[in-house]
Amino acid sequence: MSSDQDSADAHQYLSTTRLEAFSDGVFAIAITLLVLDLALRPPGSPLEQVLQAWPSYLAYVVSFLTIGAAWLGHTELTSGLVRADHILLRINLLLLLVVVFLPFPTRLVAESLDGLHGERVYATMYGLTLLALRVFLFALEEYGRREHLDSPEGETKARRAEHKLLTVIVGYLIAIIIGLVFPGLAVAAYFGIAVYLVVPFREITQLLFGRS
Amino acid sequence: MSSDQDSADAHQYLSTTRLEAFSDGVFAIAITLLVLDLALRPPGSPLEQVLQAWPSYLAYVVSFLTIGAAWLGHTELTSGLVRADHILLRINLLLLLVVVFLPFPTRLVAESLDGLHGERVYATMYGLTLLALRVFLFALEEYGRREHLDSPEGETKARRAEHKLLTVIVGYLIAIIIGLVFPGLAVAAYFGIAVYLVVPFREITQLLFGRS
Amino acid sequence: MSSDQDSADAHQYLSTTRLEAFSDGVFAIAITLLVLDLALRPPGSPLEQVLQAWPSYLAYVVSFLTIGAAWLGHTELTSGLVRADHILLRINLLLLLVVVFLPFPTRLVAESLDGLHGERVYATMYGLTLLALRVFLFALEEYGRREHLDSPEGETKARRAEHKLLTVIVGYLIAIIIGLVFPGLAVAAYFGIAVYLVVPFREITQLLFGRS
Amino acid sequence: MSSDQDSADAHQYLSTTRLEAFSDGVFAIAITLLVLDLALRPPGSPLEQVLQAWPSYLAYVVSFLTIGAAWLGHTELTSGLVRADHILLRINLLLLLVVVFLPFPTRLVAESLDGLHGERVYATMYGLTLLALRVFLFALEEYGRREHLDSPEGETKARRAEHKLLTVIVGYLIAIIIGLVFPGLAVAAYFGIAVYLVVPFREITQLLFGRS
Repeated sequence: MSSDQDSADAHQYLSTTRLEAFSDGVFAIAITLLVLDLALRPPGSPLEQVLQAWPSYLAYVVSFLTIGAAWLGHTELTSGLVRADHILLRINLLLLLVVVFLPFPTRLVAESLDGLHGERVYATMYGLTLLALRVFLFALEEYGRREHLDSPEGETKARRAEHKLLTVIVGYLIAIIIGLVFPGLAVAAYFGIAVYLVVPFREITQLLFGRS
Repeated sequence: MSSDQDSADAHQYLSTTRLEAFSDGVFAIAITLLVLDLALRPPGSPLEQVLQAWPSYLAYVVSFLTIGAAWLGHTELTSGLVRADHILLRINLLLLLVVVFLPFPTRLVAESLDGLHGERVYATMYGLTLLALRVFLFALEEYGRREHLDSPEGETKARRAEHKLLTVIVGYLIAIIIGLVFPGLAVAAYFGIAVYLVVPFREITQLLFGRS
Repeated sequence: MSSDQDSADAHQYLSTTRLEAFSDGVFAIAITLLVLDLALRPPGSPLEQVLQAWPSYLAYVVSFLTIGAAWLGHTELTSGLVRADHILLRINLLLLLVVVFLPFPTRLVAESLDGLHGERVYATMYGLTLLALRVFLFALEEYGRREHLDSPEGETKARRAEHKLLTVIVGYLIAIIIGLVFPGLAVAAYFGIAVYLVVPFREITQLLFGRS
Repeated sequence: MSSDQDSADAHQYLSTTRLEAFSDGVFAIAITLLVLDLALRPPGSPLEQVLQAWPSYLAYVVSFLTIGAAWLGHTELTSGLVRADHILLRINLLLLLVVVFLPFPTRLVAESLDGLHGERVYATMYGLTLLALRVFLFALEEYGRREHLDSPEGETKARRAEHKLLTVIVGYLIAIIIGLVFPGLAVAAYFGIAVYLVVPFREITQLLFGRS
């Protein structure tokens, strides 16, 4: 990879191709496994059962948007990277450990969401998972920037991304604390954060009010 | 991506590589998860059980062809794209949300299909999912064309694809309304549309009656 | 893709990148889902349960090698392709429909394999699936060759591959007929064919007896 | 691939693209399926259930790190490869057979881990799977090096990787023998080895104590 053999010995660089391919695979599967937890439960007429399953739909959408947002963040991050190294690959692995774990608390929250109440323990577990996801995304961004694995424009993007990530991390922390008392409200906050992460407000504004 | 830095600031372009890789992953998994809903149910001899499971096979084939057709449409769409932007990635995410959801109503329809009747609620839910899938595919096509993310030939293709998509959307709307009264008939219509989308009539005609 | 616009209109060529990525995804998932059907069943001590589950292990290995062999065949096939067209993509989709279906009869055979007997209906269903897989692989090979989608060396390879495929198809036909009377024997034959397809006899011979 | 037609006939080379894509897919799915075995089991309050499920979390993390480490090893291996051949593809398939199998003993170990005891049979089965994984990784490394499929620097890396692999193989052998008497201790050892494989001690030391 590196033309300078000495520096390659001291700090071995890797291509980002397989990092991206493996991560895309894991994100894609984790997001798709969410459907396995959708199920109707008797009693009731079919229509009643379909409507009463709304907590599963809500949890499905929140987790889908959350993993989707993480994938969007990951894509932007790696689009700025020109190379990877061993530590970056491992931080990425920790991030994926959290991504893969996410469907589990999602299921717990969905099963316990009952008329906008819900189980405190599950909501907290869910929130901590969402928080961990963002923390590792931040670590990835920060490590890539510090070790100069980014392209010059990638570095500017990384700085902006880290700003947004810190805001979101604070948001999750507040929501987790709220969830200790009002678990349903916390889930609503997680939904709001996921929407905030996915909806491209800046671009929509540009689209509506023109570009020069 | 863009050599013009100012325009890059106002409207940031992205490569389509990871969009394609992630979508391929999601399509591949959603299409493969369909097999998990195939199961035999007692009572009956093994042969009877295998034969009596025909509604699962039918639902499997319809959903497989539907996701397959969506993948084909998606492939043609991205083959015309030369770049992506943030909004396109998000519309694509919404499309994938529907793709991932599809195995759920598929399972419900399969379980309720019983001698070509079937449950109205499930057939409607299934139809709405199929409709949403096409609507987001249309939005993707339209957005790419409007924002000039296509190559020149991609634009021509997009126009043709949108025409076909509109026809299909109207077809689904009619089938959904029919399904409110005759759910079995609606499922048959969904099957017909999937076949129409997958079978390359134009190419087969060319193959049979020669090319200059 | 084609620089000749007229020919592009008459016969539109596509890149093989996404065909390969999507197929890799489907093969990878279908092969991985096989593990979901491995389970121990009481009664018995843990060791007895582990040992008594041998039919699941056998079915797992046979199906793994079969899908693996199909992937190997698919890889060789596309390594000879220089472009795809609409019909090729659809034949490939039919092939994948069979690949995705394979875990279902695998499960049935594994559950019914009991002391090398086993259920006739399931063994036949399994054999027909394996047969269909090879038939579509053959169709893909044949279509690519006829429509000159291959590179010149790809064409030679395709011819050789088709030869092997025809042998295997005949082998499956014989095994299916045998399975109508001796289902256990048929499963043994499917295992033998899978081994024959995966073990690279020619290369091993070259490795052992030298190369010039 | 090879410009020399004669040598291509004697020993046919393949590109490593699809080998990597397919392997990435299988690794990604196997690692993601681990989440399906996470579940809470009554009785107990939600908090008690969440805490009592620690053996599942432990097994999840151990298997995640193990598959992750195998992926890291695989990535380094293929980053040194410049081409593949038929035998390499098959050794890789055997490796993947083990990777896909891993979630099964993981589940068994998790279910039987009870207060750091655990079932001897399951722990042994788990250890043998981990061992087989490393043995095939070693075979892949060794074959690639012998058949000169590596780039020159790839060869140096392969030698170093084999050294580490042999150490790990000996470690697993010892842990398996220990597990025949103390299954819980063996699982702890597997955890230790996974951590050793994933944590980049050399790089962290360099990071902490500077680079020239």
